[in-house]
Amino acid sequence: MRILILGGDGYLGWATSMYFSRRGHEVHAVDNYLRRRMHEENGTDSLTPILPDLPSRARAWKEVTGLEIGVTEGDLQDWGLVERVVREFEPEAIVHYGEMPSAPYSMIDRDHAVFTQTNNVVGTLNVLFAMAELVPDAHLVKLGTMGEYGTPNIDIEEGFIEIHHKGRSDVLPFPKLAGSFYHLSKVHDSHNIHFACRIWGLRATDLNQGVVYGIETEETKLDERLVTRFDYDELFGTALNRFCLQAVIGHPLTAYGKGGQTRGYLNILDTLQCVELAVLNPPTEGEYRVFNQFTEQFSINELAEIVREAARHHGLTVEPVHVENPRVELEEHYYNAAHTKLLDLGLRPHLLSETLIESMFSVMERYKHRVIPDRIDPRTRWRGVLRERAAR
Amino acid sequence: MRILILGGDGYLGWATSMYFSRRGHEVHAVDNYLRRRMHEENGTDSLTPILPDLPSRARAWKEVTGLEIGVTEGDLQDWGLVERVVREFEPEAIVHYGEMPSAPYSMIDRDHAVFTQTNNVVGTLNVLFAMAELVPDAHLVKLGTMGEYGTPNIDIEEGFIEIHHKGRSDVLPFPKLAGSFYHLSKVHDSHNIHFACRIWGLRATDLNQGVVYGIETEETKLDERLVTRFDYDELFGTALNRFCLQAVIGHPLTAYGKGGQTRGYLNILDTLQCVELAVLNPPTEGEYRVFNQFTEQFSINELAEIVREAARHHGLTVEPVHVENPRVELEEHYYNAAHTKLLDLGLRPHLLSETLIESMFSVMERYKHRVIPDRIDPRTRWRGVLRERAAR
Repeated sequence: MRILILGGDGYLGWATSMYFSRRGHEVHAVDNYLRRRMHEENGTDSLTPILPDLPSRARAWKEVTGLEIGVTEGDLQDWGLVERVVREFEPEAIVHYGEMPSAPYSMIDRDHAVFTQTNNVVGTLNVLFAMAELVPDAHLVKLGTMGEYGTPNIDIEEGFIEIHHKGRSDVLPFPKLAGSFYHLSKVHDSHNIHFACRIWGLRATDLNQGVVYGIETEETKLDERLVTRFDYDELFGTALNRFCLQAVIGHPLTAYGKGGQTRGYLNILDTLQCVELAVLNPPTEGEYRVFNQFTEQFSINELAEIVREAARHHGLTVEPVHVENPRVELEEHYYNAAHTKLLDLGLRPHLLSETLIESMFSVMERYKHRVIPDRIDPRTRWRGVLRERAAR
Repeated sequence: MRILILGGDGYLGWATSMYFSRRGHEVHAVDNYLRRRMHEENGTDSLTPILPDLPSRARAWKEVTGLEIGVTEGDLQDWGLVERVVREFEPEAIVHYGEMPSAPYSMIDRDHAVFTQTNNVVGTLNVLFAMAELVPDAHLVKLGTMGEYGTPNIDIEEGFIEIHHKGRSDVLPFPKLAGSFYHLSKVHDSHNIHFACRIWGLRATDLNQGVVYGIETEETKLDERLVTRFDYDELFGTALNRFCLQAVIGHPLTAYGKGGQTRGYLNILDTLQCVELAVLNPPTEGEYRVFNQFTEQFSINELAEIVREAARHHGLTVEPVHVENPRVELEEHYYNAAHTKLLDLGLRPHLLSETLIESMFSVMERYKHRVIPDRIDPRTRWRGVLRERAAR
């Protein structure tokens, strides 16, 4: 199958590009190195030493496996680029990771909020128009986030909910309560994609993904040059990955606030499996479907405890510490989210209890000298805009 | 009260500016003449001959009433402009009409869709950040649209709905099923504004307004130079206003499709009353409230019949005609939307049955020579992007 990977230079995008390439698909990856530039802006970097650009990564891939990954360097906000890539490659599936992915980054200030929403919404609109005009039968596999739902006091369903109200009923989009301008940009995307499916008959799968953890895939292990990026800083690092890194460098495990925040999590190996299942089982014409893509729920306190225990086994001593929560979110709440649709398609989860966290420690120890420790603790505060005012 | 009117040059914005000014408030109007430029682009114009710019309109207002309306010409996408206006004027209420308001315009092609969403989302983000940084106690009165809800098969509530699900319940945002990239931009705004209230404690009223009709207000009648704009073309004209104009020029009343499409409607006099009620009764700190702002529901066929009958009384013969629907929408559907919150605040509706449609005819007849008849019928098709492809 011809599979276009948008954001193919990222943590998941590069891993996905190699995964599909190795399974015999024709893969073309697009990226504008936004993540690399944001790290430069912030004085941070990937823990793993990734090659300098996509052409170098594709060359290394070719040397190791003999397989080709096509590459385009460019910005999805550039309609000319999106139109050209889609016209020339004629994808059958488009896996869309190509967005600004950080909640804290979107909350730094007005410029970052506006950039986040413009970049993500316009990029996705361009993809939708290119599909409608050029490949209306292709399948969009869009990475959304479980964060679109927030933490409602009812069970979270997969994208839609049957509502009974005043003697009538309808199946309607699940209400969204996103927690940052980044998460809101994904909500905007979801509405735009759903609309494009309704009016143009496009096919789309919106993968509302949980928090991904893990540092290796079968493909990254083939050669050190094929390693995927790994972020642990306050802007791009996520809870479990960050805790593991903190354990390795002897930094306290920083839980924000009370630590009762519960979310869905999944292993990077399951991200690859889920995206593959979505691609190989496309929706019907005009269908917009939503899969909640995670395998287990944990609270922050539970994760910290799991990492502390694994670290102890590994001979590392580290303790959880509660820091002031930079976000505005519930720290103790009900959380129960459905996630059966991918299991029904055949997902076989790699559960955290079966994961060798200690093997993650070992990989991290290899790159420990690259850690920039003063960029781990949170500095971006959700109410920062108000505080700036108070300080004047 | 110091009231900032964004989009103060528009159909409702100019009428609202005069309305508040005459009632003793300090009014400042901002506009970048986007609507005027879009009409130039499309070869259309307001039926009514409005003065060439906001300063001229404010001067005429001063001459007629002795009252001042402050004016800033500029774009809400320009952060420097928004920041300066809010800092200098220090509004207590911000009435935000300043968006691209046309569903068909947003559906012309990719450029128009991207422009619509960027213009509306970025302008509103700028307003929210300016409020948070400079006037966090001010009250945002944002014009949304009933079109955000679409036509669900259950009763539409005012912004939020109590959902009972699997033995639990929560009050959550009412699910949205917007019908154009324009309507979607308003959905995006609603989510962003709700979030800003939650995290920054801002106060906002989201007025999900129905279709407005009417050509005069108490203030516009004071002097011909104070007339507000009136659109009847395919892009900016709305159902009832367009039907009245069609009756006056002897053009068949063009119902799209089967004509069973039902929506909420209100008189322009009630728009002014509703906005005033919202401004004078602000929400509490951090409260995001939604009012469904309309007074009556009609189907397109009912409206056409009402206009045909009024025209007959007025000595005009005109017949409804069904044309191919350029939109993708249900043409027969359930529709029952709550609209009690503004009534509870004291709204006294001007119902259509009590409105002298014939007086609208008379005003229109005065400007009949200005009509551009070949810009009335719909040319923008929701599936146009696909057809262009088929034609290649």
